[in-house]
Amino acid sequence: MLNVISLEQAQAMLKEKFQIKTDTELLELSDCAGRTLAEDIESAEFVPDFSRSTVDGYAVRAADTFGCSEAIPAMLKLKGEVLMGQSAAFSLGAGECAAVPTGGALPAGADAMVMLEYAEDFGGGTIAVQKPSAPGAHIIFRGDDVKAGQKVLKRGCQIQPKDIGALAAMGVCRVPVFKKPKVAVLSTGNEIVSAETKCLSVGQMRDVNGPMLASAVASAGGEPLYFGIVKDEPELLKKALIEASSAADMVLISGGSSVGARDAAALVLGELGKLLFHGLALKPGKPTLAAELGGKPVLGLPGHPVAAYFIFSLLVRPLLFSMLCAESQPRTLAAVCQTAIPSNHGREECVAVRCENGVAVPVIGKSGLITTLAGADGYIRIPRDAEGIARGESVTVYLF
Amino acid sequence: MLNVISLEQAQAMLKEKFQIKTDTELLELSDCAGRTLAEDIESAEFVPDFSRSTVDGYAVRAADTFGCSEAIPAMLKLKGEVLMGQSAAFSLGAGECAAVPTGGALPAGADAMVMLEYAEDFGGGTIAVQKPSAPGAHIIFRGDDVKAGQKVLKRGCQIQPKDIGALAAMGVCRVPVFKKPKVAVLSTGNEIVSAETKCLSVGQMRDVNGPMLASAVASAGGEPLYFGIVKDEPELLKKALIEASSAADMVLISGGSSVGARDAAALVLGELGKLLFHGLALKPGKPTLAAELGGKPVLGLPGHPVAAYFIFSLLVRPLLFSMLCAESQPRTLAAVCQTAIPSNHGREECVAVRCENGVAVPVIGKSGLITTLAGADGYIRIPRDAEGIARGESVTVYLF
Repeated sequence: MLNVISLEQAQAMLKEKFQIKTDTELLELSDCAGRTLAEDIESAEFVPDFSRSTVDGYAVRAADTFGCSEAIPAMLKLKGEVLMGQSAAFSLGAGECAAVPTGGALPAGADAMVMLEYAEDFGGGTIAVQKPSAPGAHIIFRGDDVKAGQKVLKRGCQIQPKDIGALAAMGVCRVPVFKKPKVAVLSTGNEIVSAETKCLSVGQMRDVNGPMLASAVASAGGEPLYFGIVKDEPELLKKALIEASSAADMVLISGGSSVGARDAAALVLGELGKLLFHGLALKPGKPTLAAELGGKPVLGLPGHPVAAYFIFSLLVRPLLFSMLCAESQPRTLAAVCQTAIPSNHGREECVAVRCENGVAVPVIGKSGLITTLAGADGYIRIPRDAEGIARGESVTVYLF
Repeated sequence: MLNVISLEQAQAMLKEKFQIKTDTELLELSDCAGRTLAEDIESAEFVPDFSRSTVDGYAVRAADTFGCSEAIPAMLKLKGEVLMGQSAAFSLGAGECAAVPTGGALPAGADAMVMLEYAEDFGGGTIAVQKPSAPGAHIIFRGDDVKAGQKVLKRGCQIQPKDIGALAAMGVCRVPVFKKPKVAVLSTGNEIVSAETKCLSVGQMRDVNGPMLASAVASAGGEPLYFGIVKDEPELLKKALIEASSAADMVLISGGSSVGARDAAALVLGELGKLLFHGLALKPGKPTLAAELGGKPVLGLPGHPVAAYFIFSLLVRPLLFSMLCAESQPRTLAAVCQTAIPSNHGREECVAVRCENGVAVPVIGKSGLITTLAGADGYIRIPRDAEGIARGESVTVYLF
């Protein structure tokens, strides 16, 4: 019989025990959103690779415009025009200028732009500049965005649309990402029937945890493999666990809410592999267990959907993120608690809350009710040595 | 020539003009995460559909346990055992009890559970109860989670893993969702070449906005149709816009950063359909335009990636959400600003920021640099009539 351990101990144990990284693969730019970058991305080149104008106007040598004004404009010779997407076929000498559109390349010799509104075309190839431009004015210089060799994106970052933009700018169209860890999801319990079941007999419950955890795995960057429902019989459980652990990188087993069923899972896992802990000092989530099976983590989650969802967020998601080398900062929100929440169980407690304009409203329901979750945005954590939360106390909300 | 309008005016105009809803479709439970619910979901039945125990122990008539203690236990007759997933084949009379596991069905006649640790099996079918149980103790009653006819999920909600759990509990396995609005993405500009281009000539830029906006569309619940790059020629633009607007529910066109190219898009859209506005009093984002083409919205986004990304977040995403009837509260974070940001342009300003423990750190870069975005978590908005943001001022960060 193993002792009940704290959440922190469980998190540390899993982190230390399973230092598994998934393989990497190359994906097309259009397929990599949401995936985790497997390498630092350094730019092979300068972005932009040429100095370009940020305005419509004339490229000049700044010195030629010093001291000019509306009354005494600087008269410059129009050397030519730069077309979008093309380099200038000429360079600027003293007293010369060139028409350049926004985004156009600066001709060699130019070091400033004059905006169209401060210049007048006198005809005959003469441009009158009415306002001085400082060197560098209205120019994005070569490499202003990215220098060659500069690290732009870090390994472990979850690729967002804006990062897709950065990758496109650098011409990185085959993107190295970590493969999605495969997570087998199986539900146990003689009372559990498929969610597809139309008419339930008395005593039967539809499988809530299977579909919910599969979806949670996908949203945390894993690939769920739903193994269905296994009856509470050691031989069947053993067979299913062997199958699941050979097909996946991680196994989630949930349900078996009766003592007998819970013990069966622990027993079978102890026989097949190594039981790491059985029992968490956490409310809800006490019947959580973890084991190692062929070097792979097996997490036994509580049968109650609310508890299973909390444990997913507290133990499974961090483990998935560590397999992906991803930064695993939980998304949190600062809030004040609307009502007092007493808590003195000698174990840490998680309470589901709804968030409304910075106020955390506890969603109170009997343990195990799925509707508790449907109305909640996240949860707050009450430490084991706290007497609870006072009304109006500042709390951190962990968002689902 | 149309006047420059404010962001609020633009948002209101688009909302009023395009009251388009996408069609609905039925999806399997495992495919509907992240999608938007197209109907309120009411439960057809009670969840759970029978009263069940939350502990391992004995179902009793509470009155039979009143007054009992360890010294004077209530002696009850063990009527039988309820197995997981099965109904009790018997009912309890006065002085009787039945063994029921956690999650097991209560037999008729029982109104409380006694936990295993407060009962002793004396053998011969006699159970000694050592602690009184109140009526309803340790029971989830039929319908405690959901009553038949109760609305559990609302039309317009974005389906999360926890909602998948609620749907599974109710046996709703074919889920009505809104179809993803199709959004055509096209880039314009003679300087723009495919992101796949290995070696750029001077003057050329890779298409950043195309892949970035396509990915942003997907992450906002739309289906991107990437139409590639169109040269700045009215006839080509016209052809591409007609094609895109007939294939999609919305068209995003970006780029054409020079005055000539910008005017070409406005001209063509005015000819083909109706130009709604051209020019926003917003920094960055001034060259934004909107038009109606065959009843569908066409948004002309700035060529600068940073500006295009802001406009996507401020105008395009809300429009997509309204097509999906989805709640479009932007994700925000309260923070204090690390440094003062001067702003007195007479137009609203968006400034990209990085968030660190409740502190918003402005990411300052020249306009148009994609690396400004790569390091940013979101942006703050400075109203047009504000003089800027003071150091330490409370700000709302709009997360990307």
